[in-house]
Amino acid sequence: MSIATVAAKLARSPGLTGEDVRALTTQAAGDLERLCEPEIIAHVDLPPAAREFLQRPEEAALGADLEWLRASGARLLLWGEDDYPPQLAAIPGAPAALYVLGEVAVLTAAQLAMVGARKASPLGRAIARDMAGGLAWAGLIITSGLAAGIDAASHEGALTAGGRTVAVLGTGLDRVYPAENARLAGRIRAAGALVSEFPPGTGPQRQNFPRRNRVISGLALGTLVVEADDRSGSLITARRALDQGREVFAVPGSIRSPLSRGCHRLIREGAHLVEEPANVLAELRIYNKNQRLVSIRRHCTNGGETPPGAGAPLDKEYEMLLDALGFEPATIDTLVARSGLSGESIASMLLILELEGRIAPYPGGLYGRLSK
Amino acid sequence: MSIATVAAKLARSPGLTGEDVRALTTQAAGDLERLCEPEIIAHVDLPPAAREFLQRPEEAALGADLEWLRASGARLLLWGEDDYPPQLAAIPGAPAALYVLGEVAVLTAAQLAMVGARKASPLGRAIARDMAGGLAWAGLIITSGLAAGIDAASHEGALTAGGRTVAVLGTGLDRVYPAENARLAGRIRAAGALVSEFPPGTGPQRQNFPRRNRVISGLALGTLVVEADDRSGSLITARRALDQGREVFAVPGSIRSPLSRGCHRLIREGAHLVEEPANVLAELRIYNKNQRLVSIRRHCTNGGETPPGAGAPLDKEYEMLLDALGFEPATIDTLVARSGLSGESIASMLLILELEGRIAPYPGGLYGRLSK
Repeated sequence: MSIATVAAKLARSPGLTGEDVRALTTQAAGDLERLCEPEIIAHVDLPPAAREFLQRPEEAALGADLEWLRASGARLLLWGEDDYPPQLAAIPGAPAALYVLGEVAVLTAAQLAMVGARKASPLGRAIARDMAGGLAWAGLIITSGLAAGIDAASHEGALTAGGRTVAVLGTGLDRVYPAENARLAGRIRAAGALVSEFPPGTGPQRQNFPRRNRVISGLALGTLVVEADDRSGSLITARRALDQGREVFAVPGSIRSPLSRGCHRLIREGAHLVEEPANVLAELRIYNKNQRLVSIRRHCTNGGETPPGAGAPLDKEYEMLLDALGFEPATIDTLVARSGLSGESIASMLLILELEGRIAPYPGGLYGRLSK
Repeated sequence: MSIATVAAKLARSPGLTGEDVRALTTQAAGDLERLCEPEIIAHVDLPPAAREFLQRPEEAALGADLEWLRASGARLLLWGEDDYPPQLAAIPGAPAALYVLGEVAVLTAAQLAMVGARKASPLGRAIARDMAGGLAWAGLIITSGLAAGIDAASHEGALTAGGRTVAVLGTGLDRVYPAENARLAGRIRAAGALVSEFPPGTGPQRQNFPRRNRVISGLALGTLVVEADDRSGSLITARRALDQGREVFAVPGSIRSPLSRGCHRLIREGAHLVEEPANVLAELRIYNKNQRLVSIRRHCTNGGETPPGAGAPLDKEYEMLLDALGFEPATIDTLVARSGLSGESIASMLLILELEGRIAPYPGGLYGRLSK
């Protein structure tokens, strides 16, 4: 039996986890093609529903899964295979197999999970976009759940900054939910990966979303919560991150906003308080000894060029922007008028310049150049 | 020599601290009236400038101090006297003596220091007022520095809630600074105390304000910072509180506001994150075993009545307000129209009802009754 067939079968086995795949692999002496053979299954202690399925699999559904894999160009990674992300393989109850659309290599790179409220405030979404942009620029992959609100803003922020992003779905990869994020899903596939443990055809089911959360936190070095009320599912993701021995980060906000309460609770429980991307990078030790950002940009889609650190040459557009900025603080609108660049690209360039310590934000949406 | 004369002399001795008064007292075998006698001073290691002053005191200035004490009705408390607040006496470098206008007993009661930006935002001032009101209602004395912004709002919040408040001045008690707070100072004197280690006639001098901060934190069980930028003097007060082994509390805010940065830094360094008065009370263990607020209202000006706890009878005005509120969330304006009560008294009553768990705030300035 091909490994793809074995993986599709194990992916559909109810309740089957990475630990079960490990036991099957040991029994099969490492021969992954043999994992579903009756004499292997017979000697391993499996969840009853999974054993039953493996003894009488739904051949039609499995055939459709394999056909969809061929047609879509997706990969199906079996727990224990080289491409299965090792940091996810290490969590308790890891998925037996992962469907992946996009670039598989991105899953083994350093990731930061960003999650938060679906009904986020405009400010919360802007903060998520800026944070994701700064962190993606520094080379972190932004991993989230493709939900409305903070999730979508985080994916978008990473993409706008030219970074990569991973979306973990609670549905099959052919059933993007919510539907309004279908276009975003397409962009993520092209600059990162869409991931799901659920076979194609799986629609949105309430019980699958908390399970999805453990994969989001399990793929990442840490989880950053941007806006979350007291009962938010994001708090579950943060708890999973803690269970998995990963870092938890949270952005504080006004005590008058109910969307700050979840973040404040996390901070009170020990989460790192995050005001800017550098706080996350410092905690994850993505700094060198001179307290300058270390380039881990190899994972960026536009990677390869020199990171514009101290003294490094700047792109022409950045020079234009710095010229337009001067040392008198100015708004983005002023900069659009002065430079002819678009507001969106100015916003992302300002973020990068801020991370480099070349400019600083001032109250009232102003930005000013720092003398060096 | 009378104790008042001794205290006035020691209060004017440059650099003299509580430790020095202790040494003098030991040398005088506990006889406070003898502390300034030449044979006592000769046998104690004192700061040179203080020794020089004590040997040749400015008699005219001392005479004026004593005359002002008589005329104003102020008290002058010598370190080691019974009325000198013991929690302040315990800090390193405590004032040798304290001028007090108002009620001396309030200085030995449980205090919370509240400090923050002079150029506070309207939201910051509203938060300071509400916090101070809730904490004062619970029986804590609110201690602050009578500065513009957060200080003034904290004093006002305590007064509006019928609580007591202490203002520690960096000037003589006859020289209220800033002048616009003179009326507030009068209200504080009537419902608490004005305190200074500086003799009457001392005007505002830059170097005296940081010294004043150690008295604010030293009088209190803990210091709550409401809004503070990165370079705020409030951070010095918070650091003094830590040095003195007291608690530090901070209110978080939007990461887009420079006035949040100081508070966020404190939280990152271990300060307790505060969203509501109950957070402070819980940390200071002003809760009973059922997690209900314990009445320490004996220090409130209107103290004596039953605290309106679970099942306790409510004042008639509170009943009117709850009737006006109903279970559909309403704004304060709506409640003014429905109840005929003033907006200000409704605001402070809502706070108390919120602390008791009878109502809850909702987004958009709405309040709703909770079913019990």
